[in-house]
Parts: sequence; structure tokens; C-alpha cells
Amino acid sequence: MKLNATIAGVGMTRFMKYPDKGLKELGAEAINAAVSDAGISMADVESAFVGNCAAGLVTGQESVRGQVILHAMGVGKIPIINVENACASGSTALIQACTMVSAGLYDTVLALGVEKLSHEDKSKSFAAFAGAMDIDELQEMIEELKRAAEADGADAGAGQNRSMFMDVYASAARAHMANYGTTAEQFAMVASKNSFHGSLNPRAQFQQELSVEEVLNERMIVEPLTRAMCSPIGDGAAAAVVVSEKKARELGITKPVTIASSVMHSGYNHADDEPDTVQLSSREAYEEAGLGPQDIDVVEVHDASAPAEIIAYEQLGLCAPGEGGAHVASGASRLGGRQPVNTSGGLLRKGHPVGATGLAQIVELTEQLQGRSGKRQVEGARIAMAQNGGGKKGNDAAAMVVTILRS
Amino acid sequence: MKLNATIAGVGMTRFMKYPDKGLKELGAEAINAAVSDAGISMADVESAFVGNCAAGLVTGQESVRGQVILHAMGVGKIPIINVENACASGSTALIQACTMVSAGLYDTVLALGVEKLSHEDKSKSFAAFAGAMDIDELQEMIEELKRAAEADGADAGAGQNRSMFMDVYASAARAHMANYGTTAEQFAMVASKNSFHGSLNPRAQFQQELSVEEVLNERMIVEPLTRAMCSPIGDGAAAAVVVSEKKARELGITKPVTIASSVMHSGYNHADDEPDTVQLSSREAYEEAGLGPQDIDVVEVHDASAPAEIIAYEQLGLCAPGEGGAHVASGASRLGGRQPVNTSGGLLRKGHPVGATGLAQIVELTEQLQGRSGKRQVEGARIAMAQNGGGKKGNDAAAMVVTILRS
Repeated sequence: MKLNATIAGVGMTRFMKYPDKGLKELGAEAINAAVSDAGISMADVESAFVGNCAAGLVTGQESVRGQVILHAMGVGKIPIINVENACASGSTALIQACTMVSAGLYDTVLALGVEKLSHEDKSKSFAAFAGAMDIDELQEMIEELKRAAEADGADAGAGQNRSMFMDVYASAARAHMANYGTTAEQFAMVASKNSFHGSLNPRAQFQQELSVEEVLNERMIVEPLTRAMCSPIGDGAAAAVVVSEKKARELGITKPVTIASSVMHSGYNHADDEPDTVQLSSREAYEEAGLGPQDIDVVEVHDASAPAEIIAYEQLGLCAPGEGGAHVASGASRLGGRQPVNTSGGLLRKGHPVGATGLAQIVELTEQLQGRSGKRQVEGARIAMAQNGGGKKGNDAAAMVVTILRS
Repeated sequence: MKLNATIAGVGMTRFMKYPDKGLKELGAEAINAAVSDAGISMADVESAFVGNCAAGLVTGQESVRGQVILHAMGVGKIPIINVENACASGSTALIQACTMVSAGLYDTVLALGVEKLSHEDKSKSFAAFAGAMDIDELQEMIEELKRAAEADGADAGAGQNRSMFMDVYASAARAHMANYGTTAEQFAMVASKNSFHGSLNPRAQFQQELSVEEVLNERMIVEPLTRAMCSPIGDGAAAAVVVSEKKARELGITKPVTIASSVMHSGYNHADDEPDTVQLSSREAYEEAGLGPQDIDVVEVHDASAPAEIIAYEQLGLCAPGEGGAHVASGASRLGGRQPVNTSGGLLRKGHPVGATGLAQIVELTEQLQGRSGKRQVEGARIAMAQNGGGKKGNDAAAMVVTILRS
């Protein structure tokens, strides 16, 4: 089924650590912003999909997270479905909302991504990251990462006082350096570029611009990733109101943003000559939308670490395999470049409250396509793409979603 | 949208405590059984919805539970979506699978409900129950339940070394006794009846038949609920393969069971004269199916406690308000009676591994409609109904699903 859904409104909180706010406050802020942006009232919302990843492990609130948030806003009766796919939970909520509307089941559906990831006891946040991998394989994975790090002459303290995902990314980064001559400086260019974009985004967790040198001089987390090359721990929420064609007409939306395609794949153990989930998902998303990489004006990718953005350029076909390092160095992915990537600041600088991330990408891209991104506006942007991955399974992400939006 | 989906195959594990099995083993057993029952291979499955409630809090496995289970079976690439709605997680997986197929998105979708609820540290299981309520209101709720219990002259140790849901059910039971003259003996009749049904079900956690007297003589958990009136803690999994009309024809299913309707509502603070979520959901389900309570041949209800079954009779319109006690006493809901309820043994005796429960109801009813329930077969059953509720919000369940099946 080809999706046929319109983003009628978007909203999000600033991403940051909110010691005094919980799921309810964060969720309500994003929902109210999205509903108001859509020009509807909460009573128009016929169903809600709520993506969250870590609340059970961080706060103890499991099972009925969406109901708890919406009930506090006075909303009941409507079907509320909690969905979870690690860092792709927000995109999962969106894809389900779009599917419901496209199927003609509802005219107006809310998609919310929300996360309360920070905790004074950091081990709770780390437990949430571990829970996004196969916990039966954690020990084995730690040993493997340690061996790989030692072989590369890197820090071998895998998973110690940091998300193990950073060890996974560092390992991929070292392999990219070995295979293609990519440099630590090029990874730092990603972080520096995104810090520039983040400096223009009032909802970014970090709004300070960093030079390449400053990125390289930050504390080493795991070789070759310095702190500024790793996405931070933070809290926040993002929401989108998804409507049918009929409802979009009723609302008289002047600059409608529609879903050209949204494709999800689960991780599998792919051989070297088989496509990974980003390739699978993006190729299908391009095909469904009748577009190619060259048609995309603005992109948000899942830069949970700086090398992930470089690898994403290649997987998404924005540059040739192995040329991701040169691509960022060329300025093509910088605001003002040919095809800006992560104008929001990305996960590195806007922040990465995991369950909210996928929908925050949609907030950024919808605003870009409607020409309301202020200082970080990509002029004349008509087509946008988001890539959002979650968890780890096999040698891939557990869940991957690529979404193409059109104005 | 009217659902248009066929149950091509069902399967489940026996429900019980499995100290040596985890999500993967339990999930695989149910999936393999359902896939084999449908006469398909795993390669035919185009997408999966996986309902689980407690794994994060009990085992630490969060976020990507479905991917972990399916990957261990060699399944990747396909979209896997983890859904959660407390004890209604299994029904949520089913309703999403049915919606996808009805929308023409897929021909073959797997719905799995799986739960590893038992743990040598019982506090972990209790934390999972608490996570299905609004955790910000737990303390207040405990105080309120204590006050209510004291006012009724009952045990006031709310939530102490037991699921707080039992205190909630006990409070509802005492109100039903006060309002309608329902007796503890009538609650015991439910447990005794379901123990008889469970004695005929090789997949029931408890297969011993109990007399009304034996039920009444069991240890008191919270007035008026003895242990046999409370569903046990256990583990297990249940699955259904949902297919389109086209796929059903291809498979040449001889006794197709179709979804006549499946309706979900979220809890809200309803006034006394407003319908609760069971009433809302069942009325809509009847209407969509073009049926009434009198048309249903066999029913599975959410008897997490014995009084819940009595109240469900009334909410579903199987008897008049206040007459639930007399209804069970009449034998109408017993195997051989006019409209047998919980022929599987229900949550009380078949067991209640929360995320698996909704789909286990579908397993029982599908088999009943296909005439393969052995000693507990309801002769000539053509129409079946399941009621599955989850969590608590306001004065209602957080999520409620009523599903009507037709053969």
C-alpha cells in the first residue's frame, strides 16, 4: 500500500536534561505544540501511537506510557498504542499513524515520541541502552568489542561507564578508516558542522559552535570518538499530527507536507555483498516515492555518533561508497552546501532522547519544507528525507526507518 | 474501516513457570506452532507485531524484544513492531496485525504475545504490575485502597507482597457485594468452574479441579479474594497468523475463522452513568459484527480475578446488571451451559503471563470455532468473543479490547 498521509502539524520540546520534568510534562508540551500547529483541538485526535524506549528501565513506568501521558491531558477513550523499537520508536509511531490514516481507518492520528533518559543514577540510562541489544549476548559482545579495540590499539573498556553503542560505532569507525582512509579529522568535521547547525536551533541541547580542532581536543570516549562525536544523554518529546487528504483539505493547510514513502526493515546478519537495513529501506523508499538520492533537498540522518553520519551518506546514496569522509570535507552536507544534512544539529547537537528522535527529525524536516526554519532554512527545499535506526541485532540495527517527505 | 482478516493458524506454549526458558524459547515455541498450524513457512510472514509487557522490568530486555526473538529464529528484514498495552498487549498485537492485513498492506502477518513474568526475586514481577499503573499515583492509590479496605473491614495491606491489581479487584468485589448482594461463594463458583475447564486443558498452568468449598478454604489474599480467585504469576507465549482473504483462499483453509470485529478503547474517568471501556468496546464490536450478546456461543473474558468475570458478564451484556453472581450460579457460563465462558480455564487456571493473555484467548476461541477443543469443545460453536483488558487509568482499565470471531 502506498502511504497517503499529510503532516498537519508538528511540535517538540527543546531537548536537554530536565531533572524536574517527567514523561507527562514533556509529552504534553510536544503534543500541545503539534495540535496547535495543526489548527485542531485534542478532541479531533482519533487515535494515538506513542513511542518510548527507556521509561520502564529509567523511571519504572512501563506498559501504559501513552495512556498515562494522555490521561493527564484529559484524553481517554481513543485507542492508544504504545510502540517500541529502541531509537527508532518515534519513527515507528509515525509509520503506524500514517498507515492507519492511509488505510482510511482514521482522519486524524497523533504520533508521539517521548523520552526521559537522564537520571542521577547513570547506570539506569546505560541499562536502557543495554536493553536495546540482545541481553543474552551482551557479555559476548563486550568481549568481542574489547578484542577488536585491542587489535586496533584502542581503548578496551567496552561498555564501561558509557553506552556500549559507542563501542560499536567506534569499531565501525576504525574499520572505515582502515578500509577507505577516512580520518578522525573528517569525523570531527561532522561534529563541527552539526554544532554550527545546532547553534542556529533554539531547541538544540547544545548550541555552542565547535571548530574541528575543538572537537578533536575533547575528551576521548573510545578511539577515535571524542565526546563531541557522541550523542549526549537527554530528555524530550516530539509529536506530529497525521491527517487524511480529506482532513487536510478541511483544515485548509497552505503548505501541506505529505509522506512520499516510509519504509521499515529489521536487522539481519547480512553478508558483505548484501544490503544493510539503511540500503534496503532507502532503496525502497526512493522507489516508492519515484525519486532518487539526487532529488533530496534536505536530510536528517541518525548521527548517534559522527562516523554514523559519514557511513549514512554512503548507505543512502548521497555519495559513493567510501567517499563519506571526502563528502563532509567538501561542504556538500553543510548548510549552504548542495544537500545539507542534519540542519537541526542532528543527534550530536540537537540531542538524542531516544524514543523522541525519529519524530524530532520529522519536526525539523516539516518546518524546512514549509520554509519556517529561520536561520537554518534550506532555501527552496521541496523534498526531505529522514533516516532513523534503533537497537542492534546481528551486524545491523534492530529496526531501521527511512521516510521521504514532499511539499 | 471494517476489518477483513482471517486467522490462518494459532499456537501457544503451556502457561506455567519456566525457570529455564526465556522470551526466545517461549516465543519460538508459540510462533512455530502457529506457523505450522497455518500451513505456511516463516518465509511467508511479511511483518510481525509483538506484544510484551514486563521483559524490561523483569529481565532487562527492553526496546527490541520482537527482533531478539525472531532473529534467534533466523528471521530478519521484515518490519517488526513491538507493542505494549499492559495485559492487553497480546490483543493490541492482534488488532494491529488485522488492521495491516485489512488495509491491504500485507497478506500474512504474525501476532505474538509473550511474557517472562516469573522471577526468583518476586519484587521484579510486582514492579512489572506497578509499571502498568500510573507510577506517579501509586502511593496515593495504595493509601486509597487501604482506606477502602479498612472501611469494609478487610485486610489493609494493599500492594504488600502481591500485585496491587488484586487490591483493586477486591475493592470492586466488595462494592459488587454491597450493591447487588453478590456473595463470596459466587466468586468461588467462578474459580471452581474455571478450574473444571482448566482440568480439561493440557496447556493450563493449573489442571486440578477445585470445588467451591476448596476455593473458599484457600489462603485469603485480600478480602474477599482467596488465592484461587486470583490469577497466578506465570510465563508463556501465544501467537496467531493473520492472513488476507486472498491468502486464505490460497491456503485452502477448510474452516476459516475470521475477525468479525475488534475494538479498542482507552480508560477514562467515567461517571456512574457513563459506559466503561468494556461496555464501549463490546457495544461497538457487536454493532460492527451485526451481532448481539445472545449470538455469542463461547466467550473468553479477562478473569484476572474471579469477581472480574462476574462483572464482565454484566458489562458484555451476557446477563443483566447486578445479576452476574446469579448468572454463574445458574450454570449458564459452564461448559454444557447456554454460553460457556473461559473454557480454557481463563486467566485464573490457564494462567496469565500478561502480554500473552490476549492471544491465548484467540488460540482457545479459534480452536473452539474449528471444533478441535477436545473434551472442552462447545458443540456447534460458530461465534466467539474475547475480552482482554490491560493496566489501570482513572477508574477503568488503561486499554480494553473486545474481539468477535466468526467461523
